[in-house]
Amino acid sequence: MPDVEHQKWWGWGVEGVAFDHTTKPAFAPFVETRVGVNVHTAAVVGRPRFEQLAVPASRATDGQLDSFRKVVGGGNVVLDDELRVVHWAGKSVRDLLRTRAGDFPRVPDVVLYPGTEDEVQRLVTLAHDADCVLIPFGGGSSISGSLSPEPDEQRTVISLDLGRLNQVLDVDEHSGIARIQAGVLGPDLEDQLNARGLTLGHVPDSFKHSTLGGWVATRSSGMQSDKYGDIADIVRGLRMARPGGALVLRDLPSTSSGPSLREMVLGSEGRLGVITQVTVQVHRLPEKRVVLAYMFPDFDRALAAMRGIQRSDAGPAFGRVSDANETSFSLATQKAATTAAKKVSSAGQQGLWRLLRARGWDTNQMCISYICYEGSAQRVAGDRRIVKDIMKRHGAITLGSGPGELYDQKKFDTPYLRDFLLDRSTIGDVSETAAPWSRLAIVRRNVYAAAHGAFESLGRRGFIMCHMSHSYHSGACLYFTFAFVASTSGRTLEEYGRVKDAIQQTFVDSGATLSHHHGVGTEHSAWMPEDVSPEGTAVMRGLFDASDPKNILNPGKILTGPIGS
Amino acid sequence: MPDVEHQKWWGWGVEGVAFDHTTKPAFAPFVETRVGVNVHTAAVVGRPRFEQLAVPASRATDGQLDSFRKVVGGGNVVLDDELRVVHWAGKSVRDLLRTRAGDFPRVPDVVLYPGTEDEVQRLVTLAHDADCVLIPFGGGSSISGSLSPEPDEQRTVISLDLGRLNQVLDVDEHSGIARIQAGVLGPDLEDQLNARGLTLGHVPDSFKHSTLGGWVATRSSGMQSDKYGDIADIVRGLRMARPGGALVLRDLPSTSSGPSLREMVLGSEGRLGVITQVTVQVHRLPEKRVVLAYMFPDFDRALAAMRGIQRSDAGPAFGRVSDANETSFSLATQKAATTAAKKVSSAGQQGLWRLLRARGWDTNQMCISYICYEGSAQRVAGDRRIVKDIMKRHGAITLGSGPGELYDQKKFDTPYLRDFLLDRSTIGDVSETAAPWSRLAIVRRNVYAAAHGAFESLGRRGFIMCHMSHSYHSGACLYFTFAFVASTSGRTLEEYGRVKDAIQQTFVDSGATLSHHHGVGTEHSAWMPEDVSPEGTAVMRGLFDASDPKNILNPGKILTGPIGS
Repeated sequence: MPDVEHQKWWGWGVEGVAFDHTTKPAFAPFVETRVGVNVHTAAVVGRPRFEQLAVPASRATDGQLDSFRKVVGGGNVVLDDELRVVHWAGKSVRDLLRTRAGDFPRVPDVVLYPGTEDEVQRLVTLAHDADCVLIPFGGGSSISGSLSPEPDEQRTVISLDLGRLNQVLDVDEHSGIARIQAGVLGPDLEDQLNARGLTLGHVPDSFKHSTLGGWVATRSSGMQSDKYGDIADIVRGLRMARPGGALVLRDLPSTSSGPSLREMVLGSEGRLGVITQVTVQVHRLPEKRVVLAYMFPDFDRALAAMRGIQRSDAGPAFGRVSDANETSFSLATQKAATTAAKKVSSAGQQGLWRLLRARGWDTNQMCISYICYEGSAQRVAGDRRIVKDIMKRHGAITLGSGPGELYDQKKFDTPYLRDFLLDRSTIGDVSETAAPWSRLAIVRRNVYAAAHGAFESLGRRGFIMCHMSHSYHSGACLYFTFAFVASTSGRTLEEYGRVKDAIQQTFVDSGATLSHHHGVGTEHSAWMPEDVSPEGTAVMRGLFDASDPKNILNPGKILTGPIGS
Repeated sequence: MPDVEHQKWWGWGVEGVAFDHTTKPAFAPFVETRVGVNVHTAAVVGRPRFEQLAVPASRATDGQLDSFRKVVGGGNVVLDDELRVVHWAGKSVRDLLRTRAGDFPRVPDVVLYPGTEDEVQRLVTLAHDADCVLIPFGGGSSISGSLSPEPDEQRTVISLDLGRLNQVLDVDEHSGIARIQAGVLGPDLEDQLNARGLTLGHVPDSFKHSTLGGWVATRSSGMQSDKYGDIADIVRGLRMARPGGALVLRDLPSTSSGPSLREMVLGSEGRLGVITQVTVQVHRLPEKRVVLAYMFPDFDRALAAMRGIQRSDAGPAFGRVSDANETSFSLATQKAATTAAKKVSSAGQQGLWRLLRARGWDTNQMCISYICYEGSAQRVAGDRRIVKDIMKRHGAITLGSGPGELYDQKKFDTPYLRDFLLDRSTIGDVSETAAPWSRLAIVRRNVYAAAHGAFESLGRRGFIMCHMSHSYHSGACLYFTFAFVASTSGRTLEEYGRVKDAIQQTFVDSGATLSHHHGVGTEHSAWMPEDVSPEGTAVMRGLFDASDPKNILNPGKILTGPIGS
């Protein structure tokens, strides 16, 4: 088997890592009250053993397999059922529910692991000539349905795993750019850059299990995008294998060469070809980094402060604020104090809340905020001074660096919670968007109303929470997390759809986008005409159809409906 | 006639404004020595009177004209020869030479002036149904050949002048965005925004004679792009009329909705439709603004300092540096001192040069640099402190704010110089590019060699100069200006092509782009396969062909060759 790290076939991340509520005493009471599930008593739904699943047989022909083996070698042409199931989907709630149920409408017929860019190019050409469907695969962390074959696909389906293309090829330190193979996972990429004193600074929640190529293909955004930019800003050049040959965009700081091909490849989710190599902006590792926490009396004032920071001369690496619900959740997932120092700190926290209540705060409306300062000692000090004034003006108090360190430590853990909840027949998921500053409050209000409307229509309690992150001159991202107990009727997918659809519809109805950084896939494609207008989808469909007339490049993603429709 | 400001039919800008060398005593000796033309004695080539030109008759049919009149009213359907000639081309050297020679291969048959977005939409649909060619026209300042009909075009050609669509429609001050009609000229746009205490901050050299829609269609960049961004960064949403209806992109700070339609419309030069409305980022007018000048001993140290500023915590609105040739030119176009104070300053300048020579500077290698500081008093002071250190470290001396004020005053005058030189059978033109920091010096060296090779092959002296501006994390723009005396053989176009082509070819051969902010048009289209790779042009052609199967939307621009090729 190729030496490539894969996630669990049944859930997020790697075997042996999971969400653990036992060290977080406030968690169980919180989810019992807010979501309606008692994690101590809820029946744990057994996941099937892999052997119990009926995995459809590969339909790849011997001739096809032979031709693939000639390119990548026999060891890199994989028909193994478990690996084919690992590659059949991403990690959306729908993906997880279907996988756990052994409900695979269509599984890739073969997984290929090319070791060089030339091999990728030859496979793309082969696939085109043999009329095989080609689905590029990075870390498999998509939660937008970007990785599954179409259910009724009759052609041979190849999942092209880029995992062996994981090298930083060269670095131009003077220009601050690095040429990097697309299949490298986040931690491996940062290790290679850090060894040279450099960083990409791109840290999405999926960081540990997603790849550079995947970030580009889905228009990812990392939590430090305020400083380092979205992946669209970070990418300066790239190479993409297409049936006709390599599309090569050189590393340019800016250009006026017509419509941007770089910005067509960004977000293309495999529809235009297979991204093999990316030239990205890299930065010196910052001299200093500190994450400070603040508490606001309410979300309106917190939003105003975040906008104030964006407009100020300060330039923090990130600024985010949780609304009251997410703040409560965040406090409920604190680990129990186990050392004397932590016990003091925990008691101090309770004392602080009492003090704030005495001052007239409604502690149920409190919103926690994290601001990350990076750079020279002087820059960090200057930014802290500017932000301190803004925070004060909007009624916030400073909680210091303790909670910030905690935030930094657990920032990658949240996706594991979904699996924990699913084990207890409870759905947990996320939807995120972006909108102008003037519409953020109304978008949030509308989404809350829509989610609660959906919960109500299901007769379920349901919970939703939100944070704001990723600030831009003209607006910001709102990130929602919701949960509800599934019925035992076997209609979980439909119930999930009711809530998820209500939220997505509210986004576009409220002047927000269908996704700020999770991409489109099949999850969001139904709203594309509302997001970019029907004429916009017509232009985009024209691009896809003209670029891929055989419709072999990850068909069915981004735009709904058959080719030509 | 519609109340729309047009440029001269024969040259840059408006009647009554021209380059005046008589107030600049060092200019004549400079161009005599460096370019080889004596502006006092050179024969002034008379421009033909408009009446002397043979303007091809309009081919629009009565039926077509009637249908246009029904949409926009009779007064906005213009067949006037001079206005048709104003609309036949932009202001490239080729355009100017052909226009002066009355050499019009194809002139638009009619100029239409829609007054509303709805009228634009109806005209686009009409043009499509009647198989008419449609060329959107803003300020007509293109120097890339984006505005002329194809020479052998057999269909009726409409020039669609957006000049009546010139209103700021609404402003969302909280989000820092404004919705603005595409046909507004720079000064009018800034006047409307300034009245609300706001600015767009987009100031290309063409500012006075170019429009918002034109900036978007050509991927313009303004001199203050370091602070405000290129137009691609500034645009958040837009509306574009297409035969099938309006393509509408909402005002979003960021989105992951597949390949970016926004970035397809940007730079599309009319190939995808007619941009009618743009939502842009706007900013509060800065409290303080100062442009300081610095002098470097040589260009290498100046480049290193510009990169140093980009990497620093300072964020000036612009930083530019002229190479030694451009510095000499800049000094040669200073106005003669007419007041006592200016005479002292002028004498002081001579004294300063003597002092620098005494310190070991080669004053022939000196490079002048301008840095613009904007924002709060505190921000300006902080940035100045940081830059001062960087400048000192790279051997520069500060010249104060006097030259900066001068620079600010004359920044829009340079294009008039081309007409002045053309009157004296001398070609003056510009080519600009962008490249990573590590390649800027070599790009400049190669371009100098290529230009001088071309001059030599023509047997002409020739002059070339360069400045660096528009800093990005990974590189910057190099902007070249060149001049040479044309032969009297009537082969001026060919001679011009020899020099221009040599420079453009050197750009792409040296890892630089074919244009940083002038667009492609027909001037640069031959190098598109080298700039974005043949696969890249294939994808782009697919986009154009699929989006405009009748090939009526400004055909022949950006990509060379007939549709489908």
